Amino acid sequence: METTLSSQTKTVVIGPGNPVRIIGERINPTGRKALAAEMAEGNLQRVADDALAQVEAGAALLDVNAGIPMVDEPALLAKVVELVQSLTDAPLCIDSSVVDALASGLGAYRGKALVNSVNGEEDRLEAVLPLVKKHGSAVIGLAMDDDGIPETPEKRLAVARRILSRAQDHGIDPADVVIDPLVLPVGASPMAARTVLETLRLVREELGVNTVCGASNVSFGLPDRPGLNAAFLAMTVANGITAVIANPLEEVSRMSLLAGDVLMGNDEHCMKWITAHRKPVPEV
Amino acid sequence: METTLSSQTKTVVIGPGNPVRIIGERINPTGRKALAAEMAEGNLQRVADDALAQVEAGAALLDVNAGIPMVDEPALLAKVVELVQSLTDAPLCIDSSVVDALASGLGAYRGKALVNSVNGEEDRLEAVLPLVKKHGSAVIGLAMDDDGIPETPEKRLAVARRILSRAQDHGIDPADVVIDPLVLPVGASPMAARTVLETLRLVREELGVNTVCGASNVSFGLPDRPGLNAAFLAMTVANGITAVIANPLEEVSRMSLLAGDVLMGNDEHCMKWITAHRKPVPEV
Repeated sequence: METTLSSQTKTVVIGPGNPVRIIGERINPTGRKALAAEMAEGNLQRVADDALAQVEAGAALLDVNAGIPMVDEPALLAKVVELVQSLTDAPLCIDSSVVDALASGLGAYRGKALVNSVNGEEDRLEAVLPLVKKHGSAVIGLAMDDDGIPETPEKRLAVARRILSRAQDHGIDPADVVIDPLVLPVGASPMAARTVLETLRLVREELGVNTVCGASNVSFGLPDRPGLNAAFLAMTVANGITAVIANPLEEVSRMSLLAGDVLMGNDEHCMKWITAHRKPVPEV
Repeated sequence: METTLSSQTKTVVIGPGNPVRIIGERINPTGRKALAAEMAEGNLQRVADDALAQVEAGAALLDVNAGIPMVDEPALLAKVVELVQSLTDAPLCIDSSVVDALASGLGAYRGKALVNSVNGEEDRLEAVLPLVKKHGSAVIGLAMDDDGIPETPEKRLAVARRILSRAQDHGIDPADVVIDPLVLPVGASPMAARTVLETLRLVREELGVNTVCGASNVSFGLPDRPGLNAAFLAMTVANGITAVIANPLEEVSRMSLLAGDVLMGNDEHCMKWITAHRKPVPEV
């Protein structure tokens, strides 16, 4: 199944047989104090820089989030969307926990965006799915619901199945739902990574839809986070993941994903791998 | 299923739920001209150094191979076995394409060795399996036969199944057969890595026996071989591999395997990972 996303001038396909698509995660003030302070003041220079640098480093899509306490998030997110679309042709992933902000970001967006995100919570399904349908977008569906994040892969699959079914009730094509199995820190929960890997496999085999995850959470609290993230990314690729929310400026992760494409037979004649080792990585 | 190997004083278990066991690959003159020349002259200093360095870097077992053209391989392999066993307590993997050399190496070995290897070729099965039984060893079974290396995972599984059945005919426990799905260069064959990953999964699900592979072949002819090898190792771990033939002195592979253990929940409290990042890696 293929999830097709677009800006005004560029189309990106997520799906098996394609390279794993990197959704650049940097344009997000959560945990980035300096960026949050600048964005709150309306200074979007760092947003612009991050957009360009991530695309240069291989991001196929860019996540944009403007969630800052005490800030008019809907207005700011629209502004960020407009700015980033003026700078790059990468399709965007409109990211907010606030439904009004999603609505505002989608209103400002030109093309077919990916909405980040819906989950299996009743309120969220009813608030987000109509927006997705209205704007002809695709949506990330998180494998959690009103009871929280299920412990087992089978239960996460069940939540994914319900999100898909509810999306179809709203007239949304299953190809436009991308499931995120939800990555928890392995330092706190030794089975966290295995659960994600098994959920990825089940979603692919049972539902056939595309999958995405934010990998970096897996290494929270442990040393050498880039090393753990890179190994985990390769493992998700082996289990059929089709997109990742990651920082392509983190060299070791970027290389692990490129290696994953080679090893899954999705880098024709290994040209991307060979090219990546010919030219120096851009300084950022 | 558990494969138990031993030296005189140490037992190593290969199997699910345990860390992936590294079989150190360095004591092998193939492609190492200086080592081959020294070994041919009876100078085993580098063999001794390699043995100690690999164990220090995390090898649980050591592969020993003495295949040098125009050299009395049976006599040399026995000498290498005796030397390495005098230096370390790691169980050994006795490696030769020459049956007489396997016999000689096993004759010199004290403990329960892993024989590298048998395959599905009729002559080889009939020559090697009686030796394995006689010495109470375990054996690596390569997924190839008189028709060569099968293209599909299903056919490699079929060869593995036949090797297991023939081993049982000789009174060898299935737990003492470790299947190698055979890694070919991905640069020549884009599906090479995927075929291995799928074979690993099939062998585990259908036969339940342990698996091993030599990963480094996957990157033959491509740039940044350590980077590709490391990603591939993580992928094999995600697919349930229980041992790898690798060079633990290759830092990026060693770290990828340690990360794999963390992510599969096989590094209790992440202690090996944390420890590996506390002390500097030994100079070699």
